[in-house]
Amino acid sequence: MLFIEPVESRKALFFCLSVLSRGACMGVIRLPGLIDPHVHMREPGGTHKEDWDSGTCAALAGGYTCVLAMPNTLPPLTDSRTLERSLAAARRKARCDYGVHLGAGAGNVQAAASLAERVVGLKMYLDQTFGPLQLGDLAALNGHMARWPRQRPLLVHAEGSSIAAALQLAWLNHRPVHVCHVSRKAELELIRAARERGALVTCEVAPHHLFLTEDDAPSLGPGRCEVRPRLATGADRDALWAGLKSGVIDCLATDHAPHTAAEKDGENPPPGFPGLETALGLMLGRLELDELVAVMHTNPSRIFGLPQQPETWIEVDPDACWVVTAGQMHSRCGWTPFEGRRLTGRVRSVTLRGRLAFRDGEVLAPAGWGQNVRSD
Amino acid sequence: MLFIEPVESRKALFFCLSVLSRGACMGVIRLPGLIDPHVHMREPGGTHKEDWDSGTCAALAGGYTCVLAMPNTLPPLTDSRTLERSLAAARRKARCDYGVHLGAGAGNVQAAASLAERVVGLKMYLDQTFGPLQLGDLAALNGHMARWPRQRPLLVHAEGSSIAAALQLAWLNHRPVHVCHVSRKAELELIRAARERGALVTCEVAPHHLFLTEDDAPSLGPGRCEVRPRLATGADRDALWAGLKSGVIDCLATDHAPHTAAEKDGENPPPGFPGLETALGLMLGRLELDELVAVMHTNPSRIFGLPQQPETWIEVDPDACWVVTAGQMHSRCGWTPFEGRRLTGRVRSVTLRGRLAFRDGEVLAPAGWGQNVRSD
Repeated sequence: MLFIEPVESRKALFFCLSVLSRGACMGVIRLPGLIDPHVHMREPGGTHKEDWDSGTCAALAGGYTCVLAMPNTLPPLTDSRTLERSLAAARRKARCDYGVHLGAGAGNVQAAASLAERVVGLKMYLDQTFGPLQLGDLAALNGHMARWPRQRPLLVHAEGSSIAAALQLAWLNHRPVHVCHVSRKAELELIRAARERGALVTCEVAPHHLFLTEDDAPSLGPGRCEVRPRLATGADRDALWAGLKSGVIDCLATDHAPHTAAEKDGENPPPGFPGLETALGLMLGRLELDELVAVMHTNPSRIFGLPQQPETWIEVDPDACWVVTAGQMHSRCGWTPFEGRRLTGRVRSVTLRGRLAFRDGEVLAPAGWGQNVRSD
Repeated sequence: MLFIEPVESRKALFFCLSVLSRGACMGVIRLPGLIDPHVHMREPGGTHKEDWDSGTCAALAGGYTCVLAMPNTLPPLTDSRTLERSLAAARRKARCDYGVHLGAGAGNVQAAASLAERVVGLKMYLDQTFGPLQLGDLAALNGHMARWPRQRPLLVHAEGSSIAAALQLAWLNHRPVHVCHVSRKAELELIRAARERGALVTCEVAPHHLFLTEDDAPSLGPGRCEVRPRLATGADRDALWAGLKSGVIDCLATDHAPHTAAEKDGENPPPGFPGLETALGLMLGRLELDELVAVMHTNPSRIFGLPQQPETWIEVDPDACWVVTAGQMHSRCGWTPFEGRRLTGRVRSVTLRGRLAFRDGEVLAPAGWGQNVRSD
């Protein structure tokens, strides 16, 4: 077994990894615990789709030791009461470390900042997705941009020209902004141009936008292809890969958004794909290992200001071949858009804060082993 | 009669006007010909609502010697053929000077710039209004921002956060942008903040947003109150007045958008108000004369790069009381949201390029007297 210690410095990691030759049998390699800054744990309000238990089991199975959960639960996480309800469930159930993002609503412009210590970031929805959190009012959008502490992450679900709006409001308020799940070439070009003009902007991409396009919609089916942002074109997908390689895209984030197969196949299918258990297998071999660690560990940790996880690593067999099968997964949703895909590279074990938390398909960390990355 | 020569310098005009004491009988005063940068002439495709003849008669009756027409005709003015069709009608029918704005469509990103010499500005619709010109695609929006000549005006119909998007795209493309019909306090604050950070942004307000609010909707009726941007709150209206006084708002633009009374009272009432014949009467007495000339003549002329109109002026009786009556108007639409309002101050005559074009309610300029402000 080849040991590669988790390191924060991309350069140092590159040096460690440069001894490996791609394509050859590499044995089992050790990587830092993966961090997913964008998951949906569905608690409260949607625990038939996922909860803090099943969702963090899926995370460990995918090699993630920390997940940051989005606030579009039912009710949404926009006040201290609902926030405490979700955090109490996480405290009891989570098997990997976690944080939550607060939702920016029209009604909590004044109160949001008082909850900043309890959460990782503030999430603003400029466009429509699952849940009631879309915020159309300019005064509220700008109010949140102005009041949310500058040193705390502010994340936006913004598509197309809404990204331009978010960048402008962040610029006028002298604050950084993180753009979730960039999915289109034009969006990436906008972010690159803004960054070149000095904008404090980071962004993420979801695996499904790197591996699926609108051409896959027919084979996925009319409900199962629904996701926000929508699957895009092949040209968009190619631009995302280039952006990931060139460093314009900072993070890989699964946007793990479980809905049951029955919901996806029913009337009014909700948008969203599960992603925690397939992301690493998809990315291994497509990125250099140093690139992979940067976008799945180092950059998310830095951008979201996360604490180090001591004695935490994952072991990956980069040569293990497997076939994606929803029935073998830990997520409660029971389906995956990557069903039947042959992947090479799989998580063998996860060690979280000195404890073996996952090994060969089995979650070993007990419910409650996960810790909040913020004050609890 | 007191003569006040048209002057370009606001300071000089202020000096001329400072001898007048407001409220006292001022006799007939002479002002520069008014310029409306935002009207809808409905030709081609909607001449039962208005055409270049009836619309420019309404303009002269309102004291306007130059109007700039929007491209959301049917078909829209997005190609040389439709543009030529509208300009040919204008050449034959217009009784005051005119220009047209080209429409930014998804299909003319490449071709628009080649038509720049024939038009005044390029109009981009970021939000929904009357007609098919809404442009949602970020790549197309940014393409127009990048390609339209920097020295030519680029106008946006953008509401709320779409204004932020337009400002960002203009900033990234190092170009000025003009925001049409600002209607909300938050929009104005955004524009002020961007300007303070160096953004090259100008904007206009429509009289109906200065004089009507959502509280007037019931008395107007469900169809007749429809306008885009919608009527706003009293707080918004107050902010617009403050913005007009402080100079954050550069222009008064009527957004004269005639639809017949039958259309407004029918199924699916189209949004829009007529405005050319009531604007001056509404504004007289509410702005100082130097402020009025700035926002209704000098600033529009400068922002839209219009040629001087030699030997052109209007004579206004600031003490004339009258009651707004649609039946006495020249617009073909046959109604006004200001019906029955008592106004003080009325146009007595309009002289356009040395010819008496309007006097005491009667249009004297023949059809075809109007000239295109661009190469014809």
